Amino acid sequence: MNCELLAVGTELLLGEIVNLDAQILAQGLNELGINVYWETVVGDNPQRLREAVETAKGRADLLITTGGLGPTADDLTKETVAAVFGLPLEMDQQQLERLRQRMGPKMTPNNEKQAMLPRGCTVLVNDWGTAPGCAFAQDGCHVIMLPGPPRECRPMFQYRALPYLQALGGGVIGSRYVKIFGIGESSMETLVKPLMDTLQDVTMAPYAKEGECELRITARADTKEQALARCGPVVDQVREILGSAVYGVDVNSLEEVVVRGLSQRGMTVACAESCTGGWIAKRLTDVPGASQVLGCSFITYCDEAKQKLLGVSADTLKKYTAVSAQTALEMAQGVRRISGADVGISTTGYAGPDGGTEEHPVGTVFIGLSWKGGETVICPDQRYFRSREQTRRGASSHALDLVRREVLGM
Amino acid sequence: MNCELLAVGTELLLGEIVNLDAQILAQGLNELGINVYWETVVGDNPQRLREAVETAKGRADLLITTGGLGPTADDLTKETVAAVFGLPLEMDQQQLERLRQRMGPKMTPNNEKQAMLPRGCTVLVNDWGTAPGCAFAQDGCHVIMLPGPPRECRPMFQYRALPYLQALGGGVIGSRYVKIFGIGESSMETLVKPLMDTLQDVTMAPYAKEGECELRITARADTKEQALARCGPVVDQVREILGSAVYGVDVNSLEEVVVRGLSQRGMTVACAESCTGGWIAKRLTDVPGASQVLGCSFITYCDEAKQKLLGVSADTLKKYTAVSAQTALEMAQGVRRISGADVGISTTGYAGPDGGTEEHPVGTVFIGLSWKGGETVICPDQRYFRSREQTRRGASSHALDLVRREVLGM
Repeated sequence: MNCELLAVGTELLLGEIVNLDAQILAQGLNELGINVYWETVVGDNPQRLREAVETAKGRADLLITTGGLGPTADDLTKETVAAVFGLPLEMDQQQLERLRQRMGPKMTPNNEKQAMLPRGCTVLVNDWGTAPGCAFAQDGCHVIMLPGPPRECRPMFQYRALPYLQALGGGVIGSRYVKIFGIGESSMETLVKPLMDTLQDVTMAPYAKEGECELRITARADTKEQALARCGPVVDQVREILGSAVYGVDVNSLEEVVVRGLSQRGMTVACAESCTGGWIAKRLTDVPGASQVLGCSFITYCDEAKQKLLGVSADTLKKYTAVSAQTALEMAQGVRRISGADVGISTTGYAGPDGGTEEHPVGTVFIGLSWKGGETVICPDQRYFRSREQTRRGASSHALDLVRREVLGM
Repeated sequence: MNCELLAVGTELLLGEIVNLDAQILAQGLNELGINVYWETVVGDNPQRLREAVETAKGRADLLITTGGLGPTADDLTKETVAAVFGLPLEMDQQQLERLRQRMGPKMTPNNEKQAMLPRGCTVLVNDWGTAPGCAFAQDGCHVIMLPGPPRECRPMFQYRALPYLQALGGGVIGSRYVKIFGIGESSMETLVKPLMDTLQDVTMAPYAKEGECELRITARADTKEQALARCGPVVDQVREILGSAVYGVDVNSLEEVVVRGLSQRGMTVACAESCTGGWIAKRLTDVPGASQVLGCSFITYCDEAKQKLLGVSADTLKKYTAVSAQTALEMAQGVRRISGADVGISTTGYAGPDGGTEEHPVGTVFIGLSWKGGETVICPDQRYFRSREQTRRGASSHALDLVRREVLGM
């Protein structure tokens, strides 16, 4: 089966966004054994969209469109695709009702058009946004339409389109995800390459994202359980090779591992954040059930707050400045004492773009930890922090990772 | 002049990399006033590549290819494009000499093929890699070929292709961005549609992203300044139509507007966050210079922290519970008093997925504000909060927006 991906949206042609959907879909389709031969992008223009759909219909067994399912006048994908395949659009009462419930009084007449779907199609219910997707087969061509925003397109593909495609034929795939923090993508690849080269029925794909790495290990079998079982021994081998850099398998995030780990041990944590400005607490409370481990947390951005709220001594601030190992340690001790939490964690550093000193340039962050098992301060290599955002995200990741390694012993 | 971008490379169709070249080129071309109408990706397959080039030749005034200029057997772009346009490839002695100097003893016979170029073309010298690019006009179509790796493609476009295109003629575009919070994309479009329909030389495009909306207003002129000036009156009209829902024009974010606004007024802010768990403070400190307006901030996730750190009364918590307008108000008052900040802002709610009551289901958030100008509590419509993430992000946006409207009077 060969496939064409057709993305619809003028914002792509203007270069405002990159065609991430194409990458998401291409990866998933290739894993399923479906060859992607063409990727096309057209704008919100009826004529060129129509031509693109006609071309795809003529050469591909499977056409997947992304984008153009929204409520506005320039969202034309369904109308155009349905016309090319000779299918009328009909109001789907169930989807209309769903839209009404979601939108409430803000529902406008142009919103209703999102519930218009090609006659006889399989509705792909959208739990991640308003516009439903759909799938149908006509004139020897399979068609799937998905919403454009990647945060909708990704789950819609995974949980709606993939099962539809799997049902069309030929076994299922199962993937396991090894999550890694603390080594770079190329180091990771160098380490796992010898293993990768020996694999036969199992594939391994490396990814890097926001300062972390991931290895996706995939196998194919008659059932998902069998496919996942085939991945198991490879996961074990990867764990052996990468050691404690592996922070979890089939977990969502470092913060989830920390929240679950502390929760299982009946432990609590409190943060004293300077340069990260709340990002560590935000990440911990991203995890449902965070209230089990976090009761309170402090953002002490100015020196006065570090003294007044956390009890960092004036002498320390004067002698070593706020960006120092000594201050980080006293912040961690202070927040642990004042909150009564089992674990105190702190950050203080220069996030940039301005500030920093010759000794401690922008990107320098000290991360402190205090708990019954001991106290420590780390200072991650600032050469990897090339922007305010990278410094702040990186510092929050290192802080979480410090809790994982030192407190949870994982 | 309309343009087609053709990327050549199986790694794109496998989803191993995202088509970043398309974004780089599309941005630059649009600024130059050249309309990108199609983006196509094909693999290293001679037949499908040839068809794609023929299609582009038939419909575009300008074809820009990226990728497939390398030394290996599957680098076919020059050969295929030259054949479609009926041009023979000839050895360029200058480029051959350049290659020899660059590669030294590593030069292999297949490297020589990189110096084979279409007869009569303009050579685009590559100072960032080995494969030269080229440009020519034939059969009424302009063709430019650039290398694929973004670190080569970007400078080759900027320093080689752009000057070539500018010499061909034609004006530049300028865009202004109106940022909107508090109304949905379809409501916004309904409101601005009458204006949109009257526009002639100026275009207006709506976007929705993470609970916010944006209108991009674009015009074309001889210079960028003239183009931006043409957008001005339309920006003013949009402001008039959408009123205070417009939080800024040509600004990065709501948090930037709040930080700049408070800073200009010499005011400070402190947060008392429950359900948002640090996200408001994180967003404020995302903005460089946030230390001017934020000295400290509190995350009071449990009831005890609300009492102990902020002074919320036990009676209030007992009588109204932690998720109530009364608690939100006392949190805002408390954090303002304790921090000494000019503005106190608070959040308390049910972020889900569990929790909530019949009266206050998951998604309910109370947002409190206390400052010298008064006190207020709002409770945004929770039907728009469909996940823990949306609830928390939405609550942090509404909190920032409350400061903008009430305190900054914007």
